[in-house]
Amino acid sequence: MTEYHLPRSRTECETLDARDPLCAGRERFALPQGVIYLDGHSLGPATHGALARTEATARSEWAGGLIRSWNTAGWIDLPQTVGAKIARLIGADAENVLVTDSVSVNLFKLAAAALPLLGKPGRPPYVMYEQGEFPTDASIVTGLCDMTGALPFQIAARGVLNTFNGMHGVLIRSLVNYRTGEVADVAAYEAVAAKSNTLIIWDLSHATGVIDVDLKALGVKLAVGCTYKYLNGGPGAPAFVYVRDMPETFMSPIWGWFGAKEQFDFDAHYEQKDGAAGFAAGTPPVLSMSALDAALDAFDGVDMRAANMKARALGDLIIARADAIGLQTISPRESSQRGGHVSLVHENGYAIVQALIARDVIPDFRSPDAMRFGVAPLYIRFVDVWDAMDQLADILETRAWDRPEFHARAKVT
Amino acid sequence: MTEYHLPRSRTECETLDARDPLCAGRERFALPQGVIYLDGHSLGPATHGALARTEATARSEWAGGLIRSWNTAGWIDLPQTVGAKIARLIGADAENVLVTDSVSVNLFKLAAAALPLLGKPGRPPYVMYEQGEFPTDASIVTGLCDMTGALPFQIAARGVLNTFNGMHGVLIRSLVNYRTGEVADVAAYEAVAAKSNTLIIWDLSHATGVIDVDLKALGVKLAVGCTYKYLNGGPGAPAFVYVRDMPETFMSPIWGWFGAKEQFDFDAHYEQKDGAAGFAAGTPPVLSMSALDAALDAFDGVDMRAANMKARALGDLIIARADAIGLQTISPRESSQRGGHVSLVHENGYAIVQALIARDVIPDFRSPDAMRFGVAPLYIRFVDVWDAMDQLADILETRAWDRPEFHARAKVT
Repeated sequence: MTEYHLPRSRTECETLDARDPLCAGRERFALPQGVIYLDGHSLGPATHGALARTEATARSEWAGGLIRSWNTAGWIDLPQTVGAKIARLIGADAENVLVTDSVSVNLFKLAAAALPLLGKPGRPPYVMYEQGEFPTDASIVTGLCDMTGALPFQIAARGVLNTFNGMHGVLIRSLVNYRTGEVADVAAYEAVAAKSNTLIIWDLSHATGVIDVDLKALGVKLAVGCTYKYLNGGPGAPAFVYVRDMPETFMSPIWGWFGAKEQFDFDAHYEQKDGAAGFAAGTPPVLSMSALDAALDAFDGVDMRAANMKARALGDLIIARADAIGLQTISPRESSQRGGHVSLVHENGYAIVQALIARDVIPDFRSPDAMRFGVAPLYIRFVDVWDAMDQLADILETRAWDRPEFHARAKVT
Repeated sequence: MTEYHLPRSRTECETLDARDPLCAGRERFALPQGVIYLDGHSLGPATHGALARTEATARSEWAGGLIRSWNTAGWIDLPQTVGAKIARLIGADAENVLVTDSVSVNLFKLAAAALPLLGKPGRPPYVMYEQGEFPTDASIVTGLCDMTGALPFQIAARGVLNTFNGMHGVLIRSLVNYRTGEVADVAAYEAVAAKSNTLIIWDLSHATGVIDVDLKALGVKLAVGCTYKYLNGGPGAPAFVYVRDMPETFMSPIWGWFGAKEQFDFDAHYEQKDGAAGFAAGTPPVLSMSALDAALDAFDGVDMRAANMKARALGDLIIARADAIGLQTISPRESSQRGGHVSLVHENGYAIVQALIARDVIPDFRSPDAMRFGVAPLYIRFVDVWDAMDQLADILETRAWDRPEFHARAKVT
């Protein structure tokens, strides 16, 4: 496997890129000329394949094939066939992964399905999440508890692993923290959960496509994930669920017709499909799912271990350059504990990010002060990171961020 | 307003079409040459506008604009702006309609939100649906009751309006029955509900875009609907919710980040947006929602009353021709009580539908014996119905349906 190391100059970056086997795959991406796109942890770019497929699905399958395409174009199987492509990237068996709904809805379904398995007589189960968790993960917990009488429990500090030891219930935990990029020690969490009558639902949103994770080997039973970040599925592309080794009584609370064994026998008693497939609900958004299907082809032939090693090296380069210009990071400095993005903090972070975007370098910002730089290994080169950090250094040195238009907050940040 | 009447010949059909003001709008649809598409009640066809928009959203907004398009292309507002277009078609105010998730998920959210308002001390609320209701509507009820302890109640015969009189709870009811096309008497239902401490969630899936309904005038408080049927939004296009005049305690059970007032203030306490907007959950599928947005332009300038009158006349023509060839209908013969499709029954209905499809006439089939013929008034002409019924008559007379390949059941029927 290719070794990546920390380059000390732009020339060294060029040398690394020239011998990087992943660089060839960059041609698959329809990146705008001159843009350095460091926001793949929020919305991945389009591939040429995804664009062509979107058009073919619309023109040929929808307009041309009409209703027949549910059979002839395989629309009915997309949640499974696309799920199978994702399964390979996360160390899962195909039948354990289904593409459906959003991360928020999937968290709700899995947590609601888990609760009845975890109560003790007279003692409702807990639904737990850690402080600093992504907002939707935390609020889904609260809403579910409000509905069911389960007890919400916020674990005070992230990473204090044993805090939930002995507490029965569900724990929702991001594998990679959206803010810091910190990677959880999955095996250690699962070991504590096994002792505590707790089921962990892993949120793989900031992990899938950049971390090499082997869910099966790690004993993970439940997970959800996003497909529009490192998987490049397109804006709002449907999310996935992973369900493994659960009892028959593990039932989605949303008994939609796409989750029924006899979907088109309209007189049948509702019987949920087995495993992940039972967590389908309504009709899936075919245009969005087709784009995702094609986007995943960018991972054909990609060894996720190599992809992750490259992401680590790119992240190391960001941190080294940030150190040189005196910017603090809240991301782990040890690359094995870090996902695909590095967060640098600055009190004027929002304005600095806008100044970078004005120069066609696109990171993003998370309130109150984090500038996130994502290094998706399939299309980001070492020279891209080098050049972006040059721009960042210049913006700080010249205070180029200090203009009124860079302080005006947009609706979506 | 144009009067439509029952044509007695193909020539009379041509005359009606020639003076039909809706016929001009047919040019907006990308219908395949030679196909008579009578399945718009299942999946509407593409418009040229929707195809162009899908490509523009993918190429220009996603690939070109990348993450910036959440602001610059108005992605963040789509659930509301598209909802406003639908609102006009159903007699709703814009702020009462939001495009989000699927019908199944939306039924779950609204029913779950309604239950806490309807219980009586020591007596859990009922969740009611009528026999013969669309499967997902019935099974969502059962799943929700399984989760909450509410009591599922199947009303034995459709249309026995007073059966739920005095039963407190939620009633899910299709405005137009998926099988028979029968239209419910909304005002009568709402009157009974008002006496019974019952909230009705209307499922508008088979109604929106073909029935002229005035939800506000009818006092409707809650509804969901599908957008890929008569609204032509594309396969699996996201559904909508309608919420009006509900108390602050009416909360979605799925507290996703898109339903939060301060979505991008990541330290904020979760506070749900008011009204329909609070029923958003995760990130919406932008490609699918953009196609729907453009598709709705086919309704620009369309008077829903005229559209409905035309659909009634087209349905009358189907029934008259069916009578002549001795085919029974299970749809109301009185056109004011009928939606946009007519169901004819035959024990070999499945094979007959396949034989029609082989001749490029596309209706659909619902187990065990219903052949559904949808007459979407924006693109179906009187000659189309006439020609389709000619084919049907010929297939029956020659027993052209009696071939093994027409009996082989496809995965999706």
